[in-house]
Order: sequence, then structure tokens, then C-alpha cells
Amino acid sequence: MLRDEMGTVQLVGAGPGPADLLTVRALRAIEGAEALLYDALISDEVLALAPQRCIRIQTGKRAGRASMAQDAINRLMLRLARRGLRVVRLKGGDPSIFGRVGEESDFLQAHGVPVQVTPGVTAACAAAAQFDFPLTHRGEARRVVFATVRVEDGVLQGDWMWGVDPETTIGLYMGRDLAGVVSRTLMAQGVSPDLPVAAVENAGSPAARLVVTRLADMEAAYDNSRFTGPVVTLICKVAARAAVAQLENEAPLESIASVG
Amino acid sequence: MLRDEMGTVQLVGAGPGPADLLTVRALRAIEGAEALLYDALISDEVLALAPQRCIRIQTGKRAGRASMAQDAINRLMLRLARRGLRVVRLKGGDPSIFGRVGEESDFLQAHGVPVQVTPGVTAACAAAAQFDFPLTHRGEARRVVFATVRVEDGVLQGDWMWGVDPETTIGLYMGRDLAGVVSRTLMAQGVSPDLPVAAVENAGSPAARLVVTRLADMEAAYDNSRFTGPVVTLICKVAARAAVAQLENEAPLESIASVG
Repeated sequence: MLRDEMGTVQLVGAGPGPADLLTVRALRAIEGAEALLYDALISDEVLALAPQRCIRIQTGKRAGRASMAQDAINRLMLRLARRGLRVVRLKGGDPSIFGRVGEESDFLQAHGVPVQVTPGVTAACAAAAQFDFPLTHRGEARRVVFATVRVEDGVLQGDWMWGVDPETTIGLYMGRDLAGVVSRTLMAQGVSPDLPVAAVENAGSPAARLVVTRLADMEAAYDNSRFTGPVVTLICKVAARAAVAQLENEAPLESIASVG
Repeated sequence: MLRDEMGTVQLVGAGPGPADLLTVRALRAIEGAEALLYDALISDEVLALAPQRCIRIQTGKRAGRASMAQDAINRLMLRLARRGLRVVRLKGGDPSIFGRVGEESDFLQAHGVPVQVTPGVTAACAAAAQFDFPLTHRGEARRVVFATVRVEDGVLQGDWMWGVDPETTIGLYMGRDLAGVVSRTLMAQGVSPDLPVAAVENAGSPAARLVVTRLADMEAAYDNSRFTGPVVTLICKVAARAAVAQLENEAPLESIASVG
């Protein structure tokens, strides 16, 4: 497989998990990959789409293995591209949102590797679609913010005053164990303890699970739910609509699932 | 085509325009549609994917025609579903973000129509991928907010203090003629006039155009650009990376375009 010319790296958003939530462009990239580097959140059904002869390298924590350092991932992509290969770097969701696409793209381009980025469906959008609540809604949510959470010594880092705006839907991409520190910080800043919270585990996949609670009960709800998969957390008035949708439409949603 | 049983409505995100940025699920929904209602932003190449016998109804402003009122769209979808049809309602980008999916879903479900929502790639993610800048980036952008803009009597409506956070990438889905009022409001609140702004017209499509400027020059840059297509505006330090990417990589990006 050694070639004279430089290969390419495609940084591809794999969406929330199910293969049919890949974009067509992402699907083609995976089907044409000669080397595939993938994060822990990439589903088996997406990985199965790569050609049999494709080199597969797992970069994220999975099945107890440690995750690779960012620097090692960068150097590995460069080595594969220098072998002339079509390298596909698969990232859960959309690569531009918490996907470290800037760091990887900077490194590769500094070393002369052509880079192309393919967008994807981010987890919050998949969660909203699956449980039929909007992220923006007239009179309730004029904006949506996607944020991660950094905690040091049990204290939320950074200024969280942006979280107080009652017209903003908050979408958090965070560890499952941070529900307590987040909800306490928001309430201490004056956010209502009754504000609805929708936590969606494995958003987009058939194994998705929805838990609707309120800010004051968020920590207990997360503890009781014993989530094991990735969770996206939506905090806003609109989150309350998720529960309604689920209760009223369980049967019709089931029946419509095979329509497409 | 009249059937006894109730039809279904799928509210489908069509992504930013190109057919290969549809999700596979959206593609299948369109290919199986018996009636298609579509907004003005849906591209011809996406519309061409629907079956020949599919009923096509344009709901948004296009080619000088007036757009349908939301209430009329709702009643039309209901009528088609009551005829037993598989109705697909196509929305640009992701339906949960500024797609009015809550209003349409509420109405249909109140009338007993099974509704399914399919997520899509939102314009800001497509713009970032295409011009190779991240929406979040370590040390520069910890959060990203997607917002629309309402102006009454030349004054920006609502509280815009959330726009002051220097660690937030601002993604605006707004009319092209609102650049002046937005930039003046942000600067009046203390945001640096030097903050980079990336405006991307027709994000994701081959006809996309990138204009990089700074907050103080935003209005003039929009005026000079004579945008005619939809524009997504990214305001943040990361926006400056878009210009760099475009200058350095025009040739490699061209050459990689046919790889996938």
C-alpha cells in the first residue's frame, strides 16, 4: 500500500451513533477509507461500514483499554498519510463541536497533509429529534448553547453567568457524575430549581433512554438512573416537553419507526 | 392514493443544502415520500431525490412567491396525513434549531397524526467544516451558542448580555441586513471591536462564500459582499482561523474534494 504521493486525512463527524444518522458524505468517506481512527463513542454498526482491508485503530477508551494521547493520535495520522493512505478520523457527533478538530487540523496542515472536514449531527440535535422536543421554541427558548463542564477540586471552572439567561436552552456535553456540581452552581446563580432537565443517554440510538427531572432533583435523578452510556443534558423549559411526547406517543412512534 | 388509515408526518432536517450532507435516514424519508412540503432553503438537488409521483408543495418564499402562514402549513400537513399519505416536511439544517418543529409537532399530535423527527446538520457546523475552523477550541472557545436576531424599530430585542462571554462562539442565524445593529449592540456592551467575524454564505454548498472581518467592520463587510444566499455568522476568536485555512489550503482542499 506504499505510494509516492501524500495521502489525505478526512476528519469526519459520525453523528450520534446509528449508521443511518451518518451523512451520505460521511458514509462514502468510511466506505473509501484505507485507515480508520475512531473514538470510543463510535458505534459498531458504523465501524462495520469500513472496507474489510481497512486498517482500524481505536483511539478512545473502550473495553478497559486506555485512550491515546492527542499527540500520539496526531503523529499516527501523519504516519498513515505519509504512506499515501486515505485516512478517515471518525469523531462522535459533529467534529467542530468539542471534537478537537482545530488541533488535529493544525498539526496535519503544518506537516503538509491535505485535510477535509465533514460535519455531522451533534448529540443534542439527535436527542431533541428522538424525543420530540425542540431546542428553540417561540416564547420559551430563543437560543441554544452547547457547553462542556470542567471541574477542579469539586468546583465548576469558568464563569457560568451565561447559564442564567432564561431564554437559552443549555445543552451540556459532560460526564455523568457532574450533575450535582452543575445544578448547584446554576441554582446558586439564581436559576429556578424547578427548571426542567432532560437527560438523554445514547441519544439517537435504539438504546436511548430519556430521564426528565428538574434542576433541584438533577443529581438524584442521575444517580438513580445508573447511566452507563454517554449522556447529553438539556436544561430549559422546552425540556419538559420531552416527557409529554414520550408518554403520549410511545405507540405511534413505534409504528412510524419503520416508515422511512 | 386515498387510504383508510391515518398517514404519517416526518419532520426532516435537510442539512445545509448539498444532497450528500443529508443523513442516510433523511435521504430514505425523501425517497419514500408521497407528499413533500419544503422551505425556501431546500436545494434543487435535494428536491430531485423525491419520487416522480410525489406531491411537492413549496411553503417558503422563493422566486418572488409569498410564503405560507404557519397555520396554513399545519392544516395542509394534516389534510395530507388524513389522506393516508407519508408526508415529509423538509426543513433546512436541523429541525430542532430554529425550525419551528415544536409548533408543527404539537399541532399534528393534537390531531392524532403520528410524527417522527429526523435531525440534520445545522448551517454553522457545515460552515465550520467547509472552511476548516472549529466552533469550540481549547483556550479560545469553550462554548457555542446558536441564536437568531429580532429587531424592532432598529433596536435589537431581548437581553444580549450572553453575547459578552469571551469564551463563547456566537453563531447567528439572521437576516443579512442586521449586521449593523448586531455589531453595534455587541460593541456597546463591551465586546472588542477587533473580535473576528466569519460570514459564510450558502454554507456547505459548492457555491459557499467566506468573508472574514472584525466586529467593527462587520456592517461594511456585509454591505460590500452583496450576499444573496442565506448567511450564517460566526463571531469569536476561532473565526479568524477560517481565513488562514482558506489561504493556505486552497489547492490541497481542491485536490481532496474528489477523494470521498
